[in-house]
Amino acid sequence: MAWEALAKMRDANPLVQCITNFVSMDFMANTLLATGASPAMAHAIDEIDEFVAIADSLCINAGTLSPEWLASMKAAGARARQLNKPWVLDPVAAGATSFRTSACIELLALGPSIVRGNASEILALSRASNLPPTKGVDSAHDPSQALGAAKSLAEKYHCVVAVSGAVDLVTDGTRVVSVSNGVPMLQKITASGCSVTALIAAFAAVYPREQHLEACAFALALFGLAGEIGMSKASGPASLRLQLIDALHGLDQATVSSGVKISEAS
Amino acid sequence: MAWEALAKMRDANPLVQCITNFVSMDFMANTLLATGASPAMAHAIDEIDEFVAIADSLCINAGTLSPEWLASMKAAGARARQLNKPWVLDPVAAGATSFRTSACIELLALGPSIVRGNASEILALSRASNLPPTKGVDSAHDPSQALGAAKSLAEKYHCVVAVSGAVDLVTDGTRVVSVSNGVPMLQKITASGCSVTALIAAFAAVYPREQHLEACAFALALFGLAGEIGMSKASGPASLRLQLIDALHGLDQATVSSGVKISEAS
Amino acid sequence: MAWEALAKMRDANPLVQCITNFVSMDFMANTLLATGASPAMAHAIDEIDEFVAIADSLCINAGTLSPEWLASMKAAGARARQLNKPWVLDPVAAGATSFRTSACIELLALGPSIVRGNASEILALSRASNLPPTKGVDSAHDPSQALGAAKSLAEKYHCVVAVSGAVDLVTDGTRVVSVSNGVPMLQKITASGCSVTALIAAFAAVYPREQHLEACAFALALFGLAGEIGMSKASGPASLRLQLIDALHGLDQATVSSGVKISEAS
Repeated sequence: MAWEALAKMRDANPLVQCITNFVSMDFMANTLLATGASPAMAHAIDEIDEFVAIADSLCINAGTLSPEWLASMKAAGARARQLNKPWVLDPVAAGATSFRTSACIELLALGPSIVRGNASEILALSRASNLPPTKGVDSAHDPSQALGAAKSLAEKYHCVVAVSGAVDLVTDGTRVVSVSNGVPMLQKITASGCSVTALIAAFAAVYPREQHLEACAFALALFGLAGEIGMSKASGPASLRLQLIDALHGLDQATVSSGVKISEAS
Repeated sequence: MAWEALAKMRDANPLVQCITNFVSMDFMANTLLATGASPAMAHAIDEIDEFVAIADSLCINAGTLSPEWLASMKAAGARARQLNKPWVLDPVAAGATSFRTSACIELLALGPSIVRGNASEILALSRASNLPPTKGVDSAHDPSQALGAAKSLAEKYHCVVAVSGAVDLVTDGTRVVSVSNGVPMLQKITASGCSVTALIAAFAAVYPREQHLEACAFALALFGLAGEIGMSKASGPASLRLQLIDALHGLDQATVSSGVKISEAS
Repeated sequence: MAWEALAKMRDANPLVQCITNFVSMDFMANTLLATGASPAMAHAIDEIDEFVAIADSLCINAGTLSPEWLASMKAAGARARQLNKPWVLDPVAAGATSFRTSACIELLALGPSIVRGNASEILALSRASNLPPTKGVDSAHDPSQALGAAKSLAEKYHCVVAVSGAVDLVTDGTRVVSVSNGVPMLQKITASGCSVTALIAAFAAVYPREQHLEACAFALALFGLAGEIGMSKASGPASLRLQLIDALHGLDQATVSSGVKISEAS
């Protein structure tokens, strides 16, 4: 199924508009290109309405947030919702400052299709949404500690929520799917999380909303699998990043079919 | 001749001021450094007049355009024209939105020395300039379909126009030169077009305006040749990008003399 | 001692907030991650007070300066000073324009712990601070020509000043330490200077102010040493950059102990 998803995405070659942080732009665009999608980094509010209309999906990332960019992000999220196009939110460092947390909550309220963050970010969004506390964890590195928060967020905002970690967990509030691909050194590459979020947007572009849980899992698994292939040829984080991109470009049916580790968790 | 051009450019080590999109900055700066020029990314309108005065040429790229950056681009283009310094325009995604198309037309009106785009962008600029339609093509991937538009633009704006593709075409409205270097996988690397535009600015810095057609062709050919050398050592788009930069740095007389494919097309 | 410094920094894993130029962000973040620190690129004035409070140190870089970003830089520098957290200034292209020079002087007045620049930049700051001229050199490539200016700046602003070059010089106004690691090709990689400044901030985070001269020298030496290791495996500037990052990640006690070249210069 992951192979069919990749073949389908490559065939569709979706245009993914990214309103993302400055650190991630290069790696994110190259991730999309290598996998088979087309990136478009355009953020000016003057062209949001027209640009979202020609894009197939949208990736919004709060990394180097500012009030001006937040205005564009909100306009883009609302426009995507209006046009029934999928959009994905990456709430980078939600919880670190009140400005950032509030901004992410405002974006959540505009109805993203999918939210991907690490456990700390998902927990921060849950607290800021006044959802019931989950075990009182303040900062967590293990996605399983944030699963309750992820389910609550998914239900409240009617979206899919992915919690990244050693094992990624993806939920729509009811179902939970786990993805076990990836290598620890990916955390030593800046914007690897941002890039996989953009890849989620690429897969969401070719699936209807009711299959976004699967689309999200496919993207996480394929990116992680490319990381595993890359790691076998890497001697550190920079060569891992290079090999990861090359591996995304070279993914074939045999590799994908035998390498993807997705399972229904509950 | 391409070797002499490269030797001349390396010797002059021109300072190329780039007001460019966020995605391209790293790759563009490294392209310039590897080939023998010096990049300067400076965009604040507060220092445009002084900065353009110390630069040898200017590269303006509309990728992640905003009204604030557009104001700086216009000030820089006008200042370069005033000081008789060459400047090159890359009209990224012209035609995608009205904001973007209008902005590129405003920049064109300020008198760039050279414009480089793909066929779709050149066709969009032609239509937006109210030039006669060329075969009614709405979107084209083949530079030859945009040659008429390129000639018309070159005549109207008194500049050189380059249309990138499998074979690049460069025209001043009368002469047409074709460049056949490059490999298809360059399209899988973000900002490769942006980077070659900056390289065109580096070569334009060391040639008078009447030789900008040649300067432009040299830059396109050398970048494409480095791509060919890189491709022979690459296993995907990320390793191609690395090898391309290394190859630009290592270009020698024998390689350039035997590898450059420039011909007068009409 | 350099090894102990690296082990200490890795153990502390300091969060380094970077308000830096767009060109450098990716390389800088990956440099910090590979060496053992954590980067945070956050610049919105709306979250400066909170963000500086959670960061362990701050890196401010004037590369793609604008009035808006300058306001954030000033707020961040002042906040860091207030909280007694170390911050490092990289006065990119000081002297090139009056806007840029004035901005750097305003930042200097806010009390950075360490300033790192090349000889031209340090000389420009000295002139703009109305310090006595040093030999009337207008533009210098040799750090030793800027040593007098560096000492005067260090005294006037009560900070450590590092002048980068073939041999780096670091002074607190009295002592001078020289660092002889590095390779010439580092100058062909954009933002290598910016990245080492961020690394200085990482080391400053784990030493008290009276040891910032040493912290600065350790960062310069380790980055340069990684460049030497990388150069032995590189075929050009792009592969050097990749190997440099991998080498930073792989630095071990034997390599560091035998490779670091720091000496008291006067």
